Amino acid sequence: MNLENERLIIIGGTAAGAKAAAKARSLFPELKISLFTKDKYISYSGCGMPYYIKNDIEDYNSLIIRTPEDFEKKGINVFLSHEALDINPSTETVFIKNLLANKIVEYPYTRLIIATGATPVIPDIEGVELKNIHTLRTIHDAINIKHELKTAQNAVIIGGGYIGMELAEAFLDNKINTTIIESSKQLMNNFDEEISEQLLQYTKQFKKLKILLNSSVKQFLSENNSHVSAVELTDGRLINADLVVIAVGIRPDVELAKSAKLELGSTGAIKVNEYMQTSEKNIFAAGDCVEKVNMITQKNVYIPLGTSANKEGKTAAMNLFEHRMQFKGIIGAAITRFFKFNMAICGLSEKEALKNSINNYKKITITDKDISSYMPHSHKITLKLIASKSTNRILGAQLIGEGNITPRAYALSVAISNGMTVSDYAKTDFAYAPPFSRSIDITLTAAQILQEDV
Amino acid sequence: MNLENERLIIIGGTAAGAKAAAKARSLFPELKISLFTKDKYISYSGCGMPYYIKNDIEDYNSLIIRTPEDFEKKGINVFLSHEALDINPSTETVFIKNLLANKIVEYPYTRLIIATGATPVIPDIEGVELKNIHTLRTIHDAINIKHELKTAQNAVIIGGGYIGMELAEAFLDNKINTTIIESSKQLMNNFDEEISEQLLQYTKQFKKLKILLNSSVKQFLSENNSHVSAVELTDGRLINADLVVIAVGIRPDVELAKSAKLELGSTGAIKVNEYMQTSEKNIFAAGDCVEKVNMITQKNVYIPLGTSANKEGKTAAMNLFEHRMQFKGIIGAAITRFFKFNMAICGLSEKEALKNSINNYKKITITDKDISSYMPHSHKITLKLIASKSTNRILGAQLIGEGNITPRAYALSVAISNGMTVSDYAKTDFAYAPPFSRSIDITLTAAQILQEDV
Repeated sequence: MNLENERLIIIGGTAAGAKAAAKARSLFPELKISLFTKDKYISYSGCGMPYYIKNDIEDYNSLIIRTPEDFEKKGINVFLSHEALDINPSTETVFIKNLLANKIVEYPYTRLIIATGATPVIPDIEGVELKNIHTLRTIHDAINIKHELKTAQNAVIIGGGYIGMELAEAFLDNKINTTIIESSKQLMNNFDEEISEQLLQYTKQFKKLKILLNSSVKQFLSENNSHVSAVELTDGRLINADLVVIAVGIRPDVELAKSAKLELGSTGAIKVNEYMQTSEKNIFAAGDCVEKVNMITQKNVYIPLGTSANKEGKTAAMNLFEHRMQFKGIIGAAITRFFKFNMAICGLSEKEALKNSINNYKKITITDKDISSYMPHSHKITLKLIASKSTNRILGAQLIGEGNITPRAYALSVAISNGMTVSDYAKTDFAYAPPFSRSIDITLTAAQILQEDV
Repeated sequence: MNLENERLIIIGGTAAGAKAAAKARSLFPELKISLFTKDKYISYSGCGMPYYIKNDIEDYNSLIIRTPEDFEKKGINVFLSHEALDINPSTETVFIKNLLANKIVEYPYTRLIIATGATPVIPDIEGVELKNIHTLRTIHDAINIKHELKTAQNAVIIGGGYIGMELAEAFLDNKINTTIIESSKQLMNNFDEEISEQLLQYTKQFKKLKILLNSSVKQFLSENNSHVSAVELTDGRLINADLVVIAVGIRPDVELAKSAKLELGSTGAIKVNEYMQTSEKNIFAAGDCVEKVNMITQKNVYIPLGTSANKEGKTAAMNLFEHRMQFKGIIGAAITRFFKFNMAICGLSEKEALKNSINNYKKITITDKDISSYMPHSHKITLKLIASKSTNRILGAQLIGEGNITPRAYALSVAISNGMTVSDYAKTDFAYAPPFSRSIDITLTAAQILQEDV
């Protein structure tokens, strides 16, 4: 392939952008590649930031997978602190502002990958601009939060989802009084309520942790007109706070895509095909700025996760000049822990199934040990499995507990991603040895019970 | 269902027999169930015995899942030290010898489950009858070996397979000089040679361990005409030994089945259909005495493992009076560890594929971390993945290393058991978070590389 006249520009350098750059380089050694990001860091693991804040990881440099120097060595031009403002598809150029020099330059491309990611949702609450109130999105955020943690005494986390719970672990492990304020009636809102209830029970052993469900912030208060000192709830309760993190979700960064009049999906994120092409065939998009297909419902969803960002970045690079690889979509598989309590979801929760008008389903919740019960370190896990009553297809699984849930989440993800029925799944021959598993796995028992439930 | 005139007799009480009894009881509360075993123990985990010997588990009673009293309480008559000698299918009776009273009684049945298991292969070597030479099959064996371990100084293990390696861990952990004598050119002979080679390298850190490959025993020597004192190899080498375990395999116990003229398969084990029925429809068989179907090759194989024994026992019980559940076969999924080095196989090794005349395959071996590399406790794993070049179906996977191989073994077992292609597998959406996994799993990378290899 003659790539002499080709120029790849990548906008964004966290997961999707950096992965796309690395993959494009290894596939096309001759291709001219430039990566622009408004950030000061590139190619870092956002998902690892809570563990850096906790101090499982001391140095934030450990989170950085490839430095700008690594990229430069491979002939990728990296422009930090450069914000892309406007794409002109007809001239195939991007206007990019050097934020340090305050200068705008027009760069030509023949292929463009938009990996602008997402922005944390910041609720319009009085006092939200006070110091010591953060979101956790960039390494810069993580560095600031970790720094303030050294002197903080009372932390408040707004939002009891993945980032909220992971940060709570980090704060509690650093002996900080921590309050989680969650507007819904449960923690980990993408799980079913009775499943999240078990997490809530587990959290009760942490004396420095307060969880306020069904609670909303009215305003942030300050004693010195500069730093936050307290959070006032809509019901009048006051919570002391010298460190606040808002973790109530993110929304796709689509301003740049809009400038090119790229088609957006119903979720508001950028619409792409399975080759990661936008409505302009030479413009690709990947990561938290794009809409995904739920492989179970075949509906478009916005579930921005690190694993799909990486895969989409790779897929975009693969398909730059010919169709070589498809990204089929997601099932919303996610996993996290709060100290020793693990939680994974693959596919639809029961409430999500109902929201998708899937009413004809069957379900089972069972608890079992993760490995042979006589072995040291065997622990309980609970599985909630949901399948279609009409087709027997597995719709979703939720796994929680102190035991090793990952193998079961992995196995069920293969099944759900591939539309397998409970009967298909039930015939699986899993490897068994006492230090690793049980002679009949909990997921097989559950699948078999649902298979019999006709 | 009126079960008043039905009588279930189960012969054998370890994994398959005990599981069948428990399942039959829960399905048919009214059914008369009697379980006979020549053993003094029932319902124990054979797979846990190495960890009992090692002392991870102190009391052998922990290995016992259900005691005879547990069964009796549920109305199952348990006869220990009772050996079934002869089945007469035309009269539907079994002749059973009470080994303690030395008395033979004829028992009537309407349904019979044969779960006679297997017997360790004992090579015909001079001196093999000496004291302190064992096989590891029953709890009694495990108790004896653990007892002798207290005073032993030099242990010899004949056979470097699963039991051999697990016992070596137990012996070394108890500071015993240990020699493994293996007749083939590699440890863990069901893995490919270059994979087992990595285990061999790992073992080199254990100063008290000697591994002799391509080696065979000529005779066992005794200084006192009673206990073993040394092992002489065919090449003349002498190895001091005050404890020997022979772990060179097992063969199905089919004498009882032969007495009923039940059909045996080409492997010599009892032939059953997918409902676990033998050639006599009221006689079922399950566990290590039966032949299995390899779901990849659809050939009959004899791969006796604890997980299939349990599933087959359950399946037999389910189908006693009507066809309710099928056991579709196995893929030979197995897992073990030697200290911190884990090994799993699912499906065919490369050499097993070749043995099955599968020549048109593609393969890849890659090494990656198990979880995000910046996390504490991330470790390497190596995956060898084999797929058919003509159909793209995944044929087999081998996973080794100090990292967490179980999730990958589980995921690939679902795929292989269900005939999935590398392209099917590659679209799986796995849950990712730094403490659990990587953003793009090693198995996805491997599947995708094989998918591209056309």
